[in-house]
Amino acid sequence: MIELRRDPISSRWVIINDNRDFEYGGNDNISILDQKLCPFCPGKENLTPPALLAYDKKGNKVSDKSWNIRVIPNNKPILAIEGSISRRAEGLYDKMNGVGAHEIIIETASHTRDINSFGAIEFAQDIVVAQERINDLKNDSRFEYISLFKNHGQDAGETISHPHFQLVALPIIPKNIKDEMFTAQKYYEFKERCLICDIIEQEISSGARIVTESDSFLAFVPFASRYPFETWILPKEHTGDFRTIHDKKKIEEMSEVCISVFRRLFKVLDKPSYNLVLKSLPLKQDYLQYYHWHVEIVPKITRFTGFELGTGMYINPTIPEESAKFLREAE
Amino acid sequence: MIELRRDPISSRWVIINDNRDFEYGGNDNISILDQKLCPFCPGKENLTPPALLAYDKKGNKVSDKSWNIRVIPNNKPILAIEGSISRRAEGLYDKMNGVGAHEIIIETASHTRDINSFGAIEFAQDIVVAQERINDLKNDSRFEYISLFKNHGQDAGETISHPHFQLVALPIIPKNIKDEMFTAQKYYEFKERCLICDIIEQEISSGARIVTESDSFLAFVPFASRYPFETWILPKEHTGDFRTIHDKKKIEEMSEVCISVFRRLFKVLDKPSYNLVLKSLPLKQDYLQYYHWHVEIVPKITRFTGFELGTGMYINPTIPEESAKFLREAE
Repeated sequence: MIELRRDPISSRWVIINDNRDFEYGGNDNISILDQKLCPFCPGKENLTPPALLAYDKKGNKVSDKSWNIRVIPNNKPILAIEGSISRRAEGLYDKMNGVGAHEIIIETASHTRDINSFGAIEFAQDIVVAQERINDLKNDSRFEYISLFKNHGQDAGETISHPHFQLVALPIIPKNIKDEMFTAQKYYEFKERCLICDIIEQEISSGARIVTESDSFLAFVPFASRYPFETWILPKEHTGDFRTIHDKKKIEEMSEVCISVFRRLFKVLDKPSYNLVLKSLPLKQDYLQYYHWHVEIVPKITRFTGFELGTGMYINPTIPEESAKFLREAE
Repeated sequence: MIELRRDPISSRWVIINDNRDFEYGGNDNISILDQKLCPFCPGKENLTPPALLAYDKKGNKVSDKSWNIRVIPNNKPILAIEGSISRRAEGLYDKMNGVGAHEIIIETASHTRDINSFGAIEFAQDIVVAQERINDLKNDSRFEYISLFKNHGQDAGETISHPHFQLVALPIIPKNIKDEMFTAQKYYEFKERCLICDIIEQEISSGARIVTESDSFLAFVPFASRYPFETWILPKEHTGDFRTIHDKKKIEEMSEVCISVFRRLFKVLDKPSYNLVLKSLPLKQDYLQYYHWHVEIVPKITRFTGFELGTGMYINPTIPEESAKFLREAE
């Protein structure tokens, strides 16, 4: 069964999918595959579906061999690519069939490397590939939102340690994203300015939470960080949609900032598990003026407890300004 | 520093507290204290602040000796009990001083027992004590919401394994709770009935997700469960506020249902880590008609990944109706 169900009290959609053998997110007895068994390593292409895209180190499109970046459909997707959207009631409950896309972007042919050891041009290629996939998925009118994320380390829910991003296209806009858009829109109506542009302005002028910056990008520890050493990366100029960053130089500049953040995190923390997520616009509704895409990186060194579950609030045992100082001074 | 900060994009309050030594929620290297060092065991009262309340096995109030249930202030609280509320701006950001209460309800003198091995009368005493503390904290006009929760097992963020609940009084209503109240109120305005009463009606009539029930209480796996074997316990009759269950027989009946749920969970799952949370009304605003208190129990056998972080959605690798069947047939 793959089904989307909505909790009527919290308005939160949940994906019910029992085809995953507890693989996604894993359980206590999870075994991260060792390199010999890794289905994402070169030479093991037969263990996965055929590539949707593959590029060599020079950025040339290649067939499913001699690749350095490879995009594949997840062979145990959280949502199924086939079928049309059908919203139905079950008494007072709401559900829909579990339609969506779930792709894996294998970032590099190397099993053991990760973003902190990447070069800027190399990581820029991953960004371009992610944009290419998002552009393609956007053409599918069934999809409303695309989530790009990465789980690194067991505490972050990683199940295969070969570096990879995941891309999930959803037939709904998640409630949390709707809420963010709503807040950003209200702020815009009140101030006639983008909320996140104002945040950037204040962060640059204060400086206390900056981790690193370039001409066009800023990395900072957010004022109300949920997690120790949480870091966000944003374009300084107003840009609603992540896909609109076309310029090769800009993408390389962004890569440089991302890699710098990861080098600092890996220097300050001991092999941290982390999640990375891209927050960008829903696909069909126009929030271009209001919202401002950004990347959120959260090291997983604290646990989700009953307090977070019961309130949705977080407890951060570090002071954001101090986390930023550690990271700023780490390189 | 203990401070409440609000993220302007998600409207989520975060507690910044660096007096916790990463103790709350813990990190990878966490060591759960062994019994010899446990500060919650009888004879170790000098390791904690003096008791706010203590009861013996017969339910008589006792001094801080010969107790079976003992309530203490947390000696490293997530919020500080002293101080008045002061909401301030920091540029466009919102913050307030970290005022609140953080108490520990030591459920039993025994270090190694847990709810699944409790008797109904014994657990009923814990419920009465929790109500007594909530009633007392409600008198403090600084508080807006009280969260009662329990972390059992390392994956649930437990740091001391001696059975205990935690009680946190907050000077704000968390956004998630506000959202639930808003939805419940809208539903009431539309239907002129309580949303959760309607859910109970549908669950009883379908039966597919029921775990166990008594005359006055229902335990079921919610339609859109976030976690495998997630189970909610509710009074069948409309009751907004948890504290209004006064009747001793009713409390014992509720205990019986709770214990039965835990016995089933411990039978079906292998020593599960779990969180338990109470969802009840905010303290000052009157949602008595709209909301319906309940207990949510979630075994922690899946992990929180970048997908959950980026969307607020959950992926449940089990079918709620099947989880319910396993639990129903487990006793």
